[in-house]
Amino acid sequence: MAAVAAATRWRLLLVLSAAGLGVTGAPQPPNILLLLMDDMGWGDLGVYGEPSRETPNLDRMAAEGMLFPNFYTANPLCSPSRAALLTGRLPIRSGFYTTNGHARNAYTPQEIVGGIPDSELLLPELLKEAGYTSKIVGKWHLGHRPQFHPLKHGFDEWFGSPNCHFGPYDNKARPNIPVYRDWEMVGRFYEEFPINLKTGEANLTQIYLQEALDFIKRQQAAHHPFFLHWAIDATHAPVYASRPFLGTSQRGRYGDAVREIDDSVGKILHLLRDLSIAENTFVFFTSDNGAALISAPRQGGSNGPFLCGKQTTFEGGMREPAIAWWPGHIPAGQVSHQLGSIMDLFTTSLSLAGLEPPRDRAIDGLDLLPTMLQGRLTDRPVFYYRGNALMAVTRGQYKAHFWTWTNSWEEFRQLGLQPLTQGSTAQGRRRIYLAPHFPALLRSRGVDFCPGQNVSGVTTHSQEEHTKLPLVFHLGRDPGERFPLSIASTEYLDALRQITPVVRQHQEALVPGQPQLNVCNRAVMNWAPPGCEKLGKCLMPPESVPEKCSWPH
Amino acid sequence: MAAVAAATRWRLLLVLSAAGLGVTGAPQPPNILLLLMDDMGWGDLGVYGEPSRETPNLDRMAAEGMLFPNFYTANPLCSPSRAALLTGRLPIRSGFYTTNGHARNAYTPQEIVGGIPDSELLLPELLKEAGYTSKIVGKWHLGHRPQFHPLKHGFDEWFGSPNCHFGPYDNKARPNIPVYRDWEMVGRFYEEFPINLKTGEANLTQIYLQEALDFIKRQQAAHHPFFLHWAIDATHAPVYASRPFLGTSQRGRYGDAVREIDDSVGKILHLLRDLSIAENTFVFFTSDNGAALISAPRQGGSNGPFLCGKQTTFEGGMREPAIAWWPGHIPAGQVSHQLGSIMDLFTTSLSLAGLEPPRDRAIDGLDLLPTMLQGRLTDRPVFYYRGNALMAVTRGQYKAHFWTWTNSWEEFRQLGLQPLTQGSTAQGRRRIYLAPHFPALLRSRGVDFCPGQNVSGVTTHSQEEHTKLPLVFHLGRDPGERFPLSIASTEYLDALRQITPVVRQHQEALVPGQPQLNVCNRAVMNWAPPGCEKLGKCLMPPESVPEKCSWPH
Repeated sequence: MAAVAAATRWRLLLVLSAAGLGVTGAPQPPNILLLLMDDMGWGDLGVYGEPSRETPNLDRMAAEGMLFPNFYTANPLCSPSRAALLTGRLPIRSGFYTTNGHARNAYTPQEIVGGIPDSELLLPELLKEAGYTSKIVGKWHLGHRPQFHPLKHGFDEWFGSPNCHFGPYDNKARPNIPVYRDWEMVGRFYEEFPINLKTGEANLTQIYLQEALDFIKRQQAAHHPFFLHWAIDATHAPVYASRPFLGTSQRGRYGDAVREIDDSVGKILHLLRDLSIAENTFVFFTSDNGAALISAPRQGGSNGPFLCGKQTTFEGGMREPAIAWWPGHIPAGQVSHQLGSIMDLFTTSLSLAGLEPPRDRAIDGLDLLPTMLQGRLTDRPVFYYRGNALMAVTRGQYKAHFWTWTNSWEEFRQLGLQPLTQGSTAQGRRRIYLAPHFPALLRSRGVDFCPGQNVSGVTTHSQEEHTKLPLVFHLGRDPGERFPLSIASTEYLDALRQITPVVRQHQEALVPGQPQLNVCNRAVMNWAPPGCEKLGKCLMPPESVPEKCSWPH
Repeated sequence: MAAVAAATRWRLLLVLSAAGLGVTGAPQPPNILLLLMDDMGWGDLGVYGEPSRETPNLDRMAAEGMLFPNFYTANPLCSPSRAALLTGRLPIRSGFYTTNGHARNAYTPQEIVGGIPDSELLLPELLKEAGYTSKIVGKWHLGHRPQFHPLKHGFDEWFGSPNCHFGPYDNKARPNIPVYRDWEMVGRFYEEFPINLKTGEANLTQIYLQEALDFIKRQQAAHHPFFLHWAIDATHAPVYASRPFLGTSQRGRYGDAVREIDDSVGKILHLLRDLSIAENTFVFFTSDNGAALISAPRQGGSNGPFLCGKQTTFEGGMREPAIAWWPGHIPAGQVSHQLGSIMDLFTTSLSLAGLEPPRDRAIDGLDLLPTMLQGRLTDRPVFYYRGNALMAVTRGQYKAHFWTWTNSWEEFRQLGLQPLTQGSTAQGRRRIYLAPHFPALLRSRGVDFCPGQNVSGVTTHSQEEHTKLPLVFHLGRDPGERFPLSIASTEYLDALRQITPVVRQHQEALVPGQPQLNVCNRAVMNWAPPGCEKLGKCLMPPESVPEKCSWPH
């Protein structure tokens, strides 16, 4: 209640200020800093039990703030989970899914035609109302065509890329991914922004760190409340680190990337303290989806005790590391068992700014301030979608799987080249692309989202329907989803009695958005992003041939 | 160095004191408190990433002391690992193994004929030299026949049992396990010391706690340095907790047991502070082997990200939670990556007492004081034995498996009654016993030491030899042992070059002890322990029929 009252006061003062009443020294709403990792797993931080314990800054952040062991993303894949964070809505509502195949994962590779619809209200658009200046540093991933540009969706500044840093490409069959500063491209990965696939060296995290520090300093000097979305990607394959961090981790290159990120988070929090704005800056650290076990152990992280990883709706795919930090407000050293969601960051940020979430649409995010400030626990379900399929639901300690699928037998058994990104060849034929740094690793073992984890009847390689008799796990006793409850037990029946009405209510009220990830077209790739002419780097797009995207898993 | 000098001073003062020179207020060597858990896994504490985070006292102990993420037991089973702790020697040296079958696990059930040989020097025997009073509370497990009694091996006091708390038995085919106070039995489990298998209620942890608190208070009052070996067993199936803890954990009954233990450790540390002896008491917390996944999730714990559990030589079977606490000496909040061993507790305890380890025998334990006090790291291998077979060796980050085996196909596939303890029936025929609380759980899934974890070519159900080309894992990148290094890689060759000479040296110098766990005999069971006559509880032993024990895995 105290927080809400304060927020209302900020709003009022902002209105007065905007009306020219010249309120000097008016209290500002807190700055908001969302640190979003890429493919980092629940088990990658020391505070979550990573045996090498190489994240002293993040562990300290947790000790000074609140740790959420039960925090979830909204999708086991990058683009949909990022859309969910910025809209506060399940990807099925915002259109970040495909209907090309049941339960297929989809995202925004270069050839995707869709992106974030104009009808969606993004967090930075709404924060403008409260006077915030917003910047995104790093990966956008909500569509790369002009209408989807982050500065058209509320951000005031951008430094980063619209797609994953896969590559290098030849700029003929496929262009390298551009790096933007605000409206215009300032270079491309593997060209002006080198990534050495052999050594793993890249300076990108340092560049992203500097962008964050500069932005914070500028906004502080200008007395603007700010929203910084620091969406860095060093832990997404191909993982990278700058030279001072390469070879320093006990965990290999993936660990080097984590160490550099940890060091960077330490520097950001240190700056906030140095500028004396720590107590007026809310910081949240989380990841977009579980660790990509398909890239482990050299290029993928750890999901701790949880089953499987990225691409799956088991806990390893969707439970995330999560730390809230706001000195003087969030009590230090707390652990909250609130079931949290990446979508809560939308609603919570609005609440911090003294704003209400939009009332004209379904919002799935909760305001976590009562949890963080007063330790309140709110009962709420977690929905695990894969594409257009509701795969599972958690309520309290019980998780019910209505569908199980890891990836197809064909992919799992495949010993040749493996799909990582998909699209069309220069010849226009549909085929699967392989990111060039992977073949040696993957040729030996097919596509496996659950390496070394095989739970009979659970990690299925065909899509198995359990809608009549869901597979139910007690996540407190069995966080690894290895021991389904007996369907003959009263516990099973009790669990279903809790979950079934929640699912019915959700499905009855659900209005899916127009699917954005169905259509691909080589002509829409990053051939000639704005600014390319200044760099002399415009490429000629091929003929436009829209086609259904093929999503293999 | 400072510690060693101090220890020497204590010895000198003790000698002076013993010589009647009447040194008053002479500094005492520190008290030693070894808290040994039973079947608790690496992943069971909040500080090791257990998602429910229900161990605030142990987490605080770690924050005030030193955490060892790379700490190992000496055997994946109870009796041999306990022998290793108290002798500082691998079980193959002390005789705590069987030769009845290659790589078979063996321990001390009621029908075992062997036990700790008189020729072994146990920690409490040696600590007497430095004036310590020693007590063991809880499970002894080094043989239950008269010659193996803990008070014949250096302990001054005992409250607890010689074997596991399996039961209830009928006292005809098999007696219930006795509970001793010092030399005599004071009752039996399921009789004077009830364990309710249905509800999980038992007061044993509270009794063991009280024994510890009373002993500490008495020794403090008497100004005696003390060694307390608190070897409790609530987390060994059948897991139990007292009524105030039952139903309080998010993790079910196993978690209730952990919560009661955590609370008890908190009370013990609190007493040390209250008595102002915290700075003169070295406390170490660890477990005898990995979590028993065969009993999970209702009666077994978590090994976090590690592979398999108890009974196996994968990390889940042998990597242990480990916390050292000694306020004012061990700096707070440290993490040490020293490869530590349960056998180090022997050597370290001697060092604390100012004593040298025996020179007439091989001692495997290191003195960890330089690690704990000065942060020193010592290169040392870890040997993973299963019975008489050296299954694996770790050196630095590399672990080489020379043999792999989880359990036989026959056991794994078995759908009927499953072995938990083994022995002979009343009829004298050899057969496998089933602890009566397990059938419903186990009937459905055979004997599985790696439920939900199946790494092709690694978790093998036949004994697979890899002595020529070991399976090698990098435990930093791949703590879960899921991705063997390619035998064609230079990294593989480099790792072997480091490990091979260590193994050769170990095997050339090894003198195995006389195997203690080969012979069983129903006549040696706990029919008439000393003191039974006072209670009117002496039972008649059957005819003596020595036979080879059968160890199924």
